[in-house]
Amino acid sequence: MTTDPDALEAARRDRSGHAAAERPLAVVRAASIDDVRATMRIASETTTPVVTQGALTGLAGAANAGGGEIALSVADMTRILDVSPDDQLAVVEPGILNAALNEHLATHGLWWAPDPASREISTVGGNIATGAGGLLCAKYGVTRDAVLGVDVVLADGSLVRMGHRSVKGVTGLDLTSLMIGSEGTLGVIVGATLKLRRTVPGDVCTLTAMFPSVREAAAASSAVTASGVEPAIMELMDHASLSAACGVLGLDAPTSGASQLTIQTDGPAATAEAESIADILRRRASEVRVTRDRAEGEELLRIRRAMHPGMASLGTTLIEDVSVPRSRMAEMFDEIARVERDHGVRIPTVAHAGDGNLHPNFIFDGEEVPPGIWEAADDLFRAAIRLGGTLTGEHGIGVLKSRWLADELGEKQWQLQRDIKNVFDPQGLLNPGKVFAPRDELLQHP
Amino acid sequence: MTTDPDALEAARRDRSGHAAAERPLAVVRAASIDDVRATMRIASETTTPVVTQGALTGLAGAANAGGGEIALSVADMTRILDVSPDDQLAVVEPGILNAALNEHLATHGLWWAPDPASREISTVGGNIATGAGGLLCAKYGVTRDAVLGVDVVLADGSLVRMGHRSVKGVTGLDLTSLMIGSEGTLGVIVGATLKLRRTVPGDVCTLTAMFPSVREAAAASSAVTASGVEPAIMELMDHASLSAACGVLGLDAPTSGASQLTIQTDGPAATAEAESIADILRRRASEVRVTRDRAEGEELLRIRRAMHPGMASLGTTLIEDVSVPRSRMAEMFDEIARVERDHGVRIPTVAHAGDGNLHPNFIFDGEEVPPGIWEAADDLFRAAIRLGGTLTGEHGIGVLKSRWLADELGEKQWQLQRDIKNVFDPQGLLNPGKVFAPRDELLQHP
Repeated sequence: MTTDPDALEAARRDRSGHAAAERPLAVVRAASIDDVRATMRIASETTTPVVTQGALTGLAGAANAGGGEIALSVADMTRILDVSPDDQLAVVEPGILNAALNEHLATHGLWWAPDPASREISTVGGNIATGAGGLLCAKYGVTRDAVLGVDVVLADGSLVRMGHRSVKGVTGLDLTSLMIGSEGTLGVIVGATLKLRRTVPGDVCTLTAMFPSVREAAAASSAVTASGVEPAIMELMDHASLSAACGVLGLDAPTSGASQLTIQTDGPAATAEAESIADILRRRASEVRVTRDRAEGEELLRIRRAMHPGMASLGTTLIEDVSVPRSRMAEMFDEIARVERDHGVRIPTVAHAGDGNLHPNFIFDGEEVPPGIWEAADDLFRAAIRLGGTLTGEHGIGVLKSRWLADELGEKQWQLQRDIKNVFDPQGLLNPGKVFAPRDELLQHP
Repeated sequence: MTTDPDALEAARRDRSGHAAAERPLAVVRAASIDDVRATMRIASETTTPVVTQGALTGLAGAANAGGGEIALSVADMTRILDVSPDDQLAVVEPGILNAALNEHLATHGLWWAPDPASREISTVGGNIATGAGGLLCAKYGVTRDAVLGVDVVLADGSLVRMGHRSVKGVTGLDLTSLMIGSEGTLGVIVGATLKLRRTVPGDVCTLTAMFPSVREAAAASSAVTASGVEPAIMELMDHASLSAACGVLGLDAPTSGASQLTIQTDGPAATAEAESIADILRRRASEVRVTRDRAEGEELLRIRRAMHPGMASLGTTLIEDVSVPRSRMAEMFDEIARVERDHGVRIPTVAHAGDGNLHPNFIFDGEEVPPGIWEAADDLFRAAIRLGGTLTGEHGIGVLKSRWLADELGEKQWQLQRDIKNVFDPQGLLNPGKVFAPRDELLQHP
């Protein structure tokens, strides 16, 4: 345990741009399940709130620890306890980085599919706690599809092992799924049994296509999905995000309005699928490039990977995370354009187009998100819900979006979820004020 | 609503062989969500227990309705409300049969992957309520992987829409997953948004291989899994089940001890995968047959499909459903042989070998399961749990296995699950005595 001011200060903030108002009481860096259990027992006895932390790469403020709270970090619990190629599973501690795990698994010809953009710096435990998505989800699933079981320390310090090592298992309620995406509100994930895949054999083909407008790029991506081919990656950049990324890479600016799709196919049918996708794109795009060379493919993806530095070059960013049915993506881009006009804000947007998950980046000046930006975000969230979508596809609710949770769930389901939280945590010690903020706090901006 | 004696009598029993001791009060055949809501409001006001029923094809007694209870059937709610090929989803009522849904989806080039052996006669709502598995799960996932959202009428008659139409969505707790496999204890599923797949293009190849013992068949199936190829179907029949199936089909009896694997590959790599599987099998098998002809493939699967009539020819059957990590399957067959010897019972066994899910069939005379059979089953369940497995892979707990639930979950998790049930159903009206039987009842045999 430490009360070092730098450690306390660091525990206040994740990568959302939001920080807790005050520093936590202490930071506990657990080295073992026993450390976590001891911490929770002390917390229960003293009714001290606990905020579980991993690598603090979250984008919703869910792991920010504040005044009167213990920051319980599992970032040092990084062991891989078991890899079974025969059963295609691994048992790991929560603090291991996603990329470090996959580097190890590659030596066994295996991989864990969840691939958030943060995978080099985010932990497996954090991926599970947020129900992380990524670029490959349309083809290879989200975190929920890749976890067989979790070991959880409850608020009272007891240890419960949920789920199975077997592929199938329906013994009672599926508490493993309930933990996935629970954002530290139900218990502390201290171990996970992960469902792995064999490394995909065959080629990787990469395509890029330029379109005269974002609406046409979105329509083309919907056409690819509707054709039945399954790209591994399908990323869309609107004109503003494409321009910013080209700017930081020193490339020529795209022509006015131009938007881009970047698509990868893999597996035994990679080449055939790339050809049929290219046919679909050529009917709509001004320029289509295709390569079977992996290095050249990485070069084509470089522009998409420059999105974050591109956004940083424009100002401070509130990165949002709406998700809509794939057929409604073009309409969602129309809504984003409307919100830009109505609120006078800039919202460069990229999308995981294969699964309808959009990241609108609200640009502003200064450190704190101004009220006008939240009003624009509110307008945008409601539009996504109207289109049959959700206000968060993969980042979670945390502290930043708890205000809108009941709008999407409805009052009855919101109360049901809160009652389940109370079953796990009757004293309200686990990540208080996150996800299920008290109703009277919801009237204020976060 | 009816109190017709035949209807009441039929509502007492599913296909497990177990029936409720008495007839229910009444059978309500709901035609709409409003009917379900009205039934639950009356039940709440009068504190009358309600047992939700579909096609009554369950194998754990979960939907059996007994004395003092209302049997609430949703079998007449069979509409397909929406099919979106672009979003690869369908919205359906719960009473539609799995096979009827897939017949309709085929006209759109789509399918819903869960394929319980009962798919011709079981409902989608029942598949969800039990978390049904099937033959294709190792490659195409279980029910949990194929449901985006559920509409649920709660005990008090209120309607809650859980989940999303979008591929991604992490808004609060994952109540959709909690409903999957909840066996009527949390609410009445009145609608579902299903995640569909495109019809798989390419060939289907079918292989059969004969082995001198079940242990060698199990080892061969583990070798296939470990090689990384993904068969769509991989079914194992031990000597006793193979002999019984051959018997009812009028085929020659297999040689002493002989056991069989039946494997299908599909998709763009079907032929290449079938060849590499054949290479693995030939190292161990006495005979391997391969065909790319679909009709001939169905002929090879005919023996496996004759399992149920084969068992019926031997006596009355208690069909069990343990699941183990795939690498432990040969050991599980050793345990089954030991249980047969120790308890003097016959347990012909088939397995979904691709995912480690075994169906041991306990054979006995008469209508009621004798205590000696339950003692043998108890021994077998404990063996499965010792091997890192579970006492139910896809049939559920129902009334028949509630006695063992706490053994697998541990006392703490059992209590946690029961407390969650109480959040949904504070009056204890939904399927009382199922899954979470009171602890003092657990000492008796079901």
